[in-house]
Amino acid sequence: MAMATMVKQRSLLGLKELSKEEIESILTRAAYWEASPNKIEPVLQGKFIANMFFENSTRTRFSFEVAEKRLGAEVLNFSAAVSSVQKGESIYDTVRTLESMGIDAGIIRLKPNGVLAELATKINVPLINAGDGNNEHPTQALLDLYTMRKQFGELRGLTVSIIGDIQHSRVARSNLYALQKFGAKVQFCAPGNMSAPELNAPLVSMEEALKADVIMMLRVQLERHESGMMGTPEAYREQYGLTVERASRIAPHAIIMHPAPINRGVEIDDELVEHGQSRIFPQMQNGVPIRMAVIERALT
Amino acid sequence: MAMATMVKQRSLLGLKELSKEEIESILTRAAYWEASPNKIEPVLQGKFIANMFFENSTRTRFSFEVAEKRLGAEVLNFSAAVSSVQKGESIYDTVRTLESMGIDAGIIRLKPNGVLAELATKINVPLINAGDGNNEHPTQALLDLYTMRKQFGELRGLTVSIIGDIQHSRVARSNLYALQKFGAKVQFCAPGNMSAPELNAPLVSMEEALKADVIMMLRVQLERHESGMMGTPEAYREQYGLTVERASRIAPHAIIMHPAPINRGVEIDDELVEHGQSRIFPQMQNGVPIRMAVIERALT
Amino acid sequence: MAMATMVKQRSLLGLKELSKEEIESILTRAAYWEASPNKIEPVLQGKFIANMFFENSTRTRFSFEVAEKRLGAEVLNFSAAVSSVQKGESIYDTVRTLESMGIDAGIIRLKPNGVLAELATKINVPLINAGDGNNEHPTQALLDLYTMRKQFGELRGLTVSIIGDIQHSRVARSNLYALQKFGAKVQFCAPGNMSAPELNAPLVSMEEALKADVIMMLRVQLERHESGMMGTPEAYREQYGLTVERASRIAPHAIIMHPAPINRGVEIDDELVEHGQSRIFPQMQNGVPIRMAVIERALT
Repeated sequence: MAMATMVKQRSLLGLKELSKEEIESILTRAAYWEASPNKIEPVLQGKFIANMFFENSTRTRFSFEVAEKRLGAEVLNFSAAVSSVQKGESIYDTVRTLESMGIDAGIIRLKPNGVLAELATKINVPLINAGDGNNEHPTQALLDLYTMRKQFGELRGLTVSIIGDIQHSRVARSNLYALQKFGAKVQFCAPGNMSAPELNAPLVSMEEALKADVIMMLRVQLERHESGMMGTPEAYREQYGLTVERASRIAPHAIIMHPAPINRGVEIDDELVEHGQSRIFPQMQNGVPIRMAVIERALT
Repeated sequence: MAMATMVKQRSLLGLKELSKEEIESILTRAAYWEASPNKIEPVLQGKFIANMFFENSTRTRFSFEVAEKRLGAEVLNFSAAVSSVQKGESIYDTVRTLESMGIDAGIIRLKPNGVLAELATKINVPLINAGDGNNEHPTQALLDLYTMRKQFGELRGLTVSIIGDIQHSRVARSNLYALQKFGAKVQFCAPGNMSAPELNAPLVSMEEALKADVIMMLRVQLERHESGMMGTPEAYREQYGLTVERASRIAPHAIIMHPAPINRGVEIDDELVEHGQSRIFPQMQNGVPIRMAVIERALT
Repeated sequence: MAMATMVKQRSLLGLKELSKEEIESILTRAAYWEASPNKIEPVLQGKFIANMFFENSTRTRFSFEVAEKRLGAEVLNFSAAVSSVQKGESIYDTVRTLESMGIDAGIIRLKPNGVLAELATKINVPLINAGDGNNEHPTQALLDLYTMRKQFGELRGLTVSIIGDIQHSRVARSNLYALQKFGAKVQFCAPGNMSAPELNAPLVSMEEALKADVIMMLRVQLERHESGMMGTPEAYREQYGLTVERASRIAPHAIIMHPAPINRGVEIDDELVEHGQSRIFPQMQNGVPIRMAVIERALT
């Protein structure tokens, strides 16, 4: 029983419930891994980790896999698109099945809200959230915090604008929860039908948003355009995109972030992706040591 | 020539042709692996094993992969859904291709009946059947026997009811062939159009089936419902499902088994999957040491 | 800067630009790997290689993966069919993302012509072409040369007939460029709408083509039949297929080659695939040491 509780504590379901100290210790350990001269340090040799992606993903799965292999773990990939979930097997049954086979931890991405929280009460091995519906995406926010701390030294006092489809963004939520613990100011900028009034952050205009220290653009779900939820990509760019013109007005010390994948020319102009003030690819680079720290924490 | 024959003998195509002694030695070796304190014992270091799934599978592929990695082998996954088989390449050409590249053994699942038997006459590396049309699924039956032996000490004298779509079940066939060698009594319970009169086991009523020591439920292929081969899922459950009410009437020492994936609420009620008498997840757990024993046998 | 240039030189984008000496050194090193008594020689331990297939492939991806694992590298597989490329992410962004995560080299297959050449100017890790539109497929041609050299001792003076859809064949182009550097004579045989007059090789009749030392058949894209670009498969076989009758007229010392996957009964008759003069499966076997040599060259 005590054992089971310990195991649960080593899961990472979200940042809302994590203390500032716990987040800090992950960021510190990530810095250790980033500086490590050895590509592989087999601290998790003989451990089996399953990447269970019930929603497709390139970047995140790949980033976790690099992290797992750098720690010397055995990696098992499972993607729903080629799985028995197509035959109607429930997510719970699949995860419980993989657990029965002896995995030591599971990385999990899934679409339906609420399923992960329920899974975590039933599964005994640590679970790490790699994207949970519209709820949280903690490792993304951790790598975002890591990127900001690297840039600005500390998070306290920073103003972070998150721009785009807040309503459906797990990235926005995880960043909001974590940044506020550190005394950063988060503000949202979103079209009316993409805002999330239930979240504790002010909604500002695009003009106001551009004055922040961090301009974090969210991916537009182009599918929503087809469903009529948003206007054309052109109209979206016009109103909420980070255009070259708008980027010319941000502060010289400000940085541009994006969780990717990117719709170039929709939420952000092509020329800005690798702009001097962009930290988009460094974010991806930082994802590996962050995930190493999170996985190591889950298993040691 | 002698060499080629030896190699063939280390394949595992089915249990029909395997002697009781050979099955017993696999079960005994699996017990060794189950008790092994080390997650990885690299007895197959430097060996390359290809998991060739021409039919999708989560559980079985994953179970083999864990087994392979616990033995220290190099694992190569191949799934037909993302392969040149889509371009019309024949199964034989694909397997022969992978063999040419130097794999030491192949785990293979495929749909068309008869292809595996033919492959085994042409391919020189050992092949392990991971699901062969409606023919056999030997590692599933081995893990079923292992689970029963663990429960009851010995198989002789057990009565095993296999309930559901016997006609299309490779699991039923492999269990039938193996259990009879050990002196267990196998009986089937199935709707008329799902029975298999050519198989050597009596067809009993649901009432009779419930009196057995082992109640093995088979997965319903819901696709058959759409094709009109079976009635509604509700009607199936009513007549052949293991409902909570029916389960309350099985013997206190009896166990419930299912090869999974499960249609909860169709062939078995939700509440029974992790019931005290269910061995469904332990079956999956037992699959790993069974497959370790089978792979080790093929390669050493 | 000097560093970046060095890195680029270790990429393998095509054979057109490679010197005869460089090709020879790859062939020589492949012979070393073919003769190696150890399945795994971990000269690339701690290196991460990403197999990035933006076009599906069984054989080629598998061959690279075996090569990578025999060299002791960590392998990460990425296939576009289950990736965010579906969400519209550009190929560049995906490759740049994987590079950011710390891969040491990338194996890449893609469909659109010209993208690889552009990528190579922007990505810093070595890239190895595993199939580039209709442009080049250098590792295939290298294994073809290796197979011919093994058969005939040297390439100088050989006549090689390449038969089929030259226009769309990256295999034909890479073989043409490389064979000519070694003083072999390349000739094409193709229907009018599948020929490539811009390439520097004579177009010969089927009768003439059959007199060569090497008869290399290309895969017919059956999709082109549906689009009306070719006649029926039967008519194609009649005019350009290697039938048993035609094969009976090739020289006793000549060999039959094919890059696979094969349409048995279209461009080549079933009975010829494993004919005594066929080197089709040996070609696939030779692919592994060739790719070991190419990858080792890229990373050491």
